[in-house]
Amino acid sequence: MPKHCLTGEEFSQAELLSLLNLADTLRAEKIRNGGVSTRKDLAGRTLITLFEKPSLRTHVSFTVAIQELGGYAVESYSSNRKQEEPEDIARVLAGYGHLIMLRTFEQKTVERMAAHSPIPVINGLSDTHHPCQVFADLLTLKQKLGSLKGATLAYVGDGNNILHSLLLLCPFLGVNVHYACPPGFLPDAEITRRAKSRAAEGGGSIQYFVNAKDACQGAHAIYTDVWTSMGFEKEEAAREAAFAGFQVNSDLYSVAAPNASLMHCMPMVKGKEISEEMAAHPNAVFFRQSENRLHAQKALMLSLGVQ
Amino acid sequence: MPKHCLTGEEFSQAELLSLLNLADTLRAEKIRNGGVSTRKDLAGRTLITLFEKPSLRTHVSFTVAIQELGGYAVESYSSNRKQEEPEDIARVLAGYGHLIMLRTFEQKTVERMAAHSPIPVINGLSDTHHPCQVFADLLTLKQKLGSLKGATLAYVGDGNNILHSLLLLCPFLGVNVHYACPPGFLPDAEITRRAKSRAAEGGGSIQYFVNAKDACQGAHAIYTDVWTSMGFEKEEAAREAAFAGFQVNSDLYSVAAPNASLMHCMPMVKGKEISEEMAAHPNAVFFRQSENRLHAQKALMLSLGVQ
Amino acid sequence: MPKHCLTGEEFSQAELLSLLNLADTLRAEKIRNGGVSTRKDLAGRTLITLFEKPSLRTHVSFTVAIQELGGYAVESYSSNRKQEEPEDIARVLAGYGHLIMLRTFEQKTVERMAAHSPIPVINGLSDTHHPCQVFADLLTLKQKLGSLKGATLAYVGDGNNILHSLLLLCPFLGVNVHYACPPGFLPDAEITRRAKSRAAEGGGSIQYFVNAKDACQGAHAIYTDVWTSMGFEKEEAAREAAFAGFQVNSDLYSVAAPNASLMHCMPMVKGKEISEEMAAHPNAVFFRQSENRLHAQKALMLSLGVQ
Repeated sequence: MPKHCLTGEEFSQAELLSLLNLADTLRAEKIRNGGVSTRKDLAGRTLITLFEKPSLRTHVSFTVAIQELGGYAVESYSSNRKQEEPEDIARVLAGYGHLIMLRTFEQKTVERMAAHSPIPVINGLSDTHHPCQVFADLLTLKQKLGSLKGATLAYVGDGNNILHSLLLLCPFLGVNVHYACPPGFLPDAEITRRAKSRAAEGGGSIQYFVNAKDACQGAHAIYTDVWTSMGFEKEEAAREAAFAGFQVNSDLYSVAAPNASLMHCMPMVKGKEISEEMAAHPNAVFFRQSENRLHAQKALMLSLGVQ
Repeated sequence: MPKHCLTGEEFSQAELLSLLNLADTLRAEKIRNGGVSTRKDLAGRTLITLFEKPSLRTHVSFTVAIQELGGYAVESYSSNRKQEEPEDIARVLAGYGHLIMLRTFEQKTVERMAAHSPIPVINGLSDTHHPCQVFADLLTLKQKLGSLKGATLAYVGDGNNILHSLLLLCPFLGVNVHYACPPGFLPDAEITRRAKSRAAEGGGSIQYFVNAKDACQGAHAIYTDVWTSMGFEKEEAAREAAFAGFQVNSDLYSVAAPNASLMHCMPMVKGKEISEEMAAHPNAVFFRQSENRLHAQKALMLSLGVQ
Repeated sequence: MPKHCLTGEEFSQAELLSLLNLADTLRAEKIRNGGVSTRKDLAGRTLITLFEKPSLRTHVSFTVAIQELGGYAVESYSSNRKQEEPEDIARVLAGYGHLIMLRTFEQKTVERMAAHSPIPVINGLSDTHHPCQVFADLLTLKQKLGSLKGATLAYVGDGNNILHSLLLLCPFLGVNVHYACPPGFLPDAEITRRAKSRAAEGGGSIQYFVNAKDACQGAHAIYTDVWTSMGFEKEEAAREAAFAGFQVNSDLYSVAAPNASLMHCMPMVKGKEISEEMAAHPNAVFFRQSENRLHAQKALMLSLGVQ
């Protein structure tokens, strides 16, 4: 059975730390080499990408990642995909490529694909999980803070796939996650329960705050995401009302640790979940996060033991 | 004048057998090499792909095929394509690439393109022909049966592009094709006439059956396709009524030769043209067929004498 | 600050002439090498392409261009692009690639992107400029006439992005541009003013004609473009009325210089802006123009000092 990455929980602490170290090594190597990668680890290997939701960062970063490891990416699409079963698609694609990356709506879709795929399947985003983004975020925190153990990350806003993956992966590596979400927008209870059990194992902690400012107290990083993700546009007005008081702005930032990082997985709507001022703040690390998608995903692909 | 592949009739028997042998060689080479191709036959050559209909298998298999021969694929698209003449598109693309693959509606479009193209044009599917799929199917039959001569292939269902290409190409290589289609869904008369003349030349035969089960009697393989192809969705209810009695199921399978292969070019609608049971049958070779698209298309591109 | 190509005005005369010479050299090299490029100038470099408008020539020619220089292209797209600021997109993409090519509506978009991009940005078409097409056109004129200085190019039709770029770039290299556009379809006044000042500097000239035939008198090339560009389909009927008398046909061609070239950036609507007869004329150089997109854009990318 191939190793997949569906939620990130497939990796032990040691494996996750190795993945982050490898990502940093790949980044350093590329910088030393004038911004060009000449690696051939995955020469002749094909990454097949599938997008049920369009994507800028995920599409470009995965395509460049495999190319910079010597392989190449092919985007697969079909008007019949909805009607064709994920199990069948996975088995067809395994005849052509060495690795599958799927951006989908239902987590079940990527799980069904993985269950029947003879090649590794990577979750490039689902409604409930976004492990690749959080690998990049952990890499960013590590680069900024030197160490993950004991760091405090405050997440303010929607209890969505980003928060789920932060909860599952950060405390498992020793990070304390404080989160503040408005009523009705809390993270999934079962994922939170699982995350708390993993936090206990990993030495980090998880704490919920009713008040956004309380969550940010002393935090080394403040993270937020759009209030209205792709596919939820109809709820926009209701969401904006619910999220009043959950904007990352200078008031919230004032209680964070000195030089706390401002994080966002982008795209962002400035003036909504983050103030214009914070979006332009020198401690904003958004573009470092997005660049780290590249390095983290290279390390991930190398960690999956692609044949 | 470049060599094209518009219907597959461009190839002599010897050329088709060579193509299939080459496909098998390429497959074996890749397996021996750990599932990776290091060939450079088409290094520096560009395959330009055009899709008027979306595609999973055709898009991915052609893109990987050219990459595994050392070249690369570029997908061409334009909102103006319908308004721009195929002749002009072919001449423009010949300035950029070495080979064109077109998936289109009207066979006339790929023919017009080929008539003015200084580089080879491959028909990746039209309303009336699908030679690349049938190359893969012949390869699959050859792999399963050892030899094509004397094999009996039963096709049950819609008299569409797949059946047309099966009729034109299989008996020409010695295969006996039995087909059963409901009234109103018979294959094109002129193509059938041409196919019969080619069958006589090739040592195979073509036989029509009113009854699906009669067509499957003693068959070494039973082949079907969706009842409602892309572009015919509005006819779905009428089609399902017409196709009652033409489902590939255990009743039909019971009269076939022992261990007969179950074939489908996918995507399939389980419970319609093929029963759930047959779709999951150990003698189903769907995924072998789809993988063989890759090997057959590599052999095809190498057979077209790309400059 | 990286060098961008937003209008083509970023280049001195010497730089433009070098770019055209390099394009010719690249073309000759490829022909000598049997139609295959083995250059590695941009090995390991990624060109990221973004298309707000779909494209056949621009997409394929840029993708092949970077591949034939040893690099690779990734197309970036997102349903959120309109909502995400160009400045942010540029900074994200600079984390993944070495060069950006944008086909957009508003010139302002490509300018905003360039203003914040740490990597070169190329304008692959905007509502007001199309420098890459005109580089290819200049290359075509040079190939046909031997020299640009003193050549007369007549442009007949819509005062659009093509005419703007012709006015800005051709007289700057010594070409005399005669243009005839119907009332209401004249080129932008500010661009024309700038172009005249550049013409004075470059030794060419710019002359407006009310009558299309007068503009073509003695011209070495007659150039036209579609009357209804992408995005203006609703105006089609009104435009066709306005453009009566501005068709490139045998009557107009009869007053041009002997063997004058017929130019069009395609796609063309035969029978509208160009007669069927002229579209099929042996002196039509449309396909040379489109092929020259490839060579000119390679030279352009090499001229931007990609890191």
